[in-house]
Amino acid sequence: MTLLYLEDVKIGDTFRFGSHTFTREGMIAFARQFDPQPFHVDEQAAAKSIYGGLIASGWHTIGVTFRLAVEGFVNRVASMGSPGVDEVRWLKPVRPGDTITASGEVLEVRPSASKPDRGFVRVRYAATNQHGELVMTLVGMGLFARKPSGA
Amino acid sequence: MTLLYLEDVKIGDTFRFGSHTFTREGMIAFARQFDPQPFHVDEQAAAKSIYGGLIASGWHTIGVTFRLAVEGFVNRVASMGSPGVDEVRWLKPVRPGDTITASGEVLEVRPSASKPDRGFVRVRYAATNQHGELVMTLVGMGLFARKPSGA
Repeated sequence: MTLLYLEDVKIGDTFRFGSHTFTREGMIAFARQFDPQPFHVDEQAAAKSIYGGLIASGWHTIGVTFRLAVEGFVNRVASMGSPGVDEVRWLKPVRPGDTITASGEVLEVRPSASKPDRGFVRVRYAATNQHGELVMTLVGMGLFARKPSGA
Repeated sequence: MTLLYLEDVKIGDTFRFGSHTFTREGMIAFARQFDPQPFHVDEQAAAKSIYGGLIASGWHTIGVTFRLAVEGFVNRVASMGSPGVDEVRWLKPVRPGDTITASGEVLEVRPSASKPDRGFVRVRYAATNQHGELVMTLVGMGLFARKPSGA
């Protein structure tokens, strides 16, 4: 596996990752552990809610999207951690049977001013459903190692 | 259960929620599904990583914090959904055996300019470990229903 250093990514690089289909059971199992709001865990309460039926926790949508991004990209990065994430937006509900596809676009690549061995990379990750609609976007920050001399 | 409407919260309100202790098994199970980076799923790889040992996925820390917030607050809100989250910051690693306590503080309460039945509320959620150190903060946005006349 070839590691990706700061020098290996540039603004505008885009990635298409894999897909995942949400099941009712998977949605309820996630939400029982991490987001037990009625419209995520209880079919009958969800039917009477503003959503008109069960929807996935927004954190579940992020988890699935991020796993696809880890498999397709993040695990190849010479990573020195992540300080955080900005601008999480849940744009459309995700319902049982929906299939989302994950993608990413590099927004910023910036060497650290104080630490010569690393730099910041901002990537907008997105999840798109089977109708081509964006359901979630977020902007992740990563610390990437700079390429060692001779590498 | 008394529902919390927009009129029931104000800037500066603070909440202390419950606690959760992370186990090695729980951390690995979460990360295998949603964040399979080596330092989250593989003890030996983690020992050789920049973290010097297994750490929880940042998304796992958020999930646990949010569940505590749902149980202590969010499920009492007359909620009309959430457009998103900003300023997620992972400040310290969470390791096996660490106990985090969740809390919240209301940052902003603003009636919607276009929809008279609702308003925006921004809450900073935080997770603090057993040493009193902040390990994660995020700012969530919620849409709260306004109190019906006569309620």
